[in-house]
Amino acid sequence: MEIKVVRKVLAVNERMAAENRKLFSNKGIFVLNLMSSPGSGKTAILEKTLARLLPKVPAAVIVGDVYTTRDADRLARSGAPVVQITTGDFGGTCHLAAHVVGEAAAGINLDAVAVLFIENIGNLICPGGYDLGEDVRGVVLSVTEGEDKPLKYACIFRSCDFTVLNKVDLLPHLTFNKEEAIANIRAINPNMQIFETSAMTGQGLDVWIAWLEEQVRAKRCRTRGALAND
Amino acid sequence: MEIKVVRKVLAVNERMAAENRKLFSNKGIFVLNLMSSPGSGKTAILEKTLARLLPKVPAAVIVGDVYTTRDADRLARSGAPVVQITTGDFGGTCHLAAHVVGEAAAGINLDAVAVLFIENIGNLICPGGYDLGEDVRGVVLSVTEGEDKPLKYACIFRSCDFTVLNKVDLLPHLTFNKEEAIANIRAINPNMQIFETSAMTGQGLDVWIAWLEEQVRAKRCRTRGALAND
Repeated sequence: MEIKVVRKVLAVNERMAAENRKLFSNKGIFVLNLMSSPGSGKTAILEKTLARLLPKVPAAVIVGDVYTTRDADRLARSGAPVVQITTGDFGGTCHLAAHVVGEAAAGINLDAVAVLFIENIGNLICPGGYDLGEDVRGVVLSVTEGEDKPLKYACIFRSCDFTVLNKVDLLPHLTFNKEEAIANIRAINPNMQIFETSAMTGQGLDVWIAWLEEQVRAKRCRTRGALAND
Repeated sequence: MEIKVVRKVLAVNERMAAENRKLFSNKGIFVLNLMSSPGSGKTAILEKTLARLLPKVPAAVIVGDVYTTRDADRLARSGAPVVQITTGDFGGTCHLAAHVVGEAAAGINLDAVAVLFIENIGNLICPGGYDLGEDVRGVVLSVTEGEDKPLKYACIFRSCDFTVLNKVDLLPHLTFNKEEAIANIRAINPNMQIFETSAMTGQGLDVWIAWLEEQVRAKRCRTRGALAND
């Protein structure tokens, strides 16, 4: 009985995710679903990313937390439209679901947005099973978490298009073996794109931003036809 | 319909947790349920803890992961009996449940155990709702995760008896404000016992071990009557 209900929930989620995807594509918006453990630095990366993208690339954020609006408060300082979802109101759900993202997106003027970041709830397990209608999925892995996490949380890493290996400024103070971590990521997902960053020092953000801008341009071309000077 | 099933699952879990609790108490075993984000250092703390407790205080470990037996392999080197639960076999469940712990405990000679550590799956949300039959619940919080985590993952922090604030050796390299973190913990849970540790350098482990030994002695006295020299 439990399994049946879970299947039904996932089927509903898939339907709602398809609706989100259609909406976002109609608007030519590039959408990222960012997942990670608590405290990996998702919000800090987004803060730095928004500061570099805006105003050239108009961005919006949907951010999920079980409790508090702290992340939304931090991100709103960028000037970007930010919608906070607190799942504590919905029984403390441990992941974002497509219908919740759809409702949040309705609160954003999507015609003025080129890239939408969905900052998922800090959880390396449950969010992986829920398509939100995104174009790409990324996982943020802090180097303080250890090399073995891609193997232990394989589903998330398998489902993602890119990994942001964050807090690399701390590497001199850790026993973390970066080569082993990258080998573990590739063992789970050979095609994973890997960015090495420090939200604190700014290291590696240029490469990440350049990739992002390229994706935003490509999404626009795919969905609105090739526009000159875009 | 979904809610009904979840309620039923939790009611079954409570019944199984009560059975575990009765079994552990009959044997005079002190049981800890350790929860945290991925990569907070639960396993490293347990490695150091087992090395100091054994052979004086006989200990066993039940360790949960979605995938891999890496943590069990690390902990088994201590010589303690270790049972790994990999929930990937059960549909990738994101938390330990009482019946799974009961089955794992059946594989341990409990008559030879004074303290049982249950290392839960790395997840700051879902494990909080599942009583495993433990005496105390602890959350390991790495200082690399940020001061705000007790507020954002309030349910886990509210349900715990103690916090292990780990990786304090990294404090000189972080902007982490320890006083703010502790204030946040106390705002959620005024009675929280807080240990500051570094599994890497050993800092703070003496206080943690002394507390543990005291709890083990107290549990034995409560359940077997006061024994001299115990």
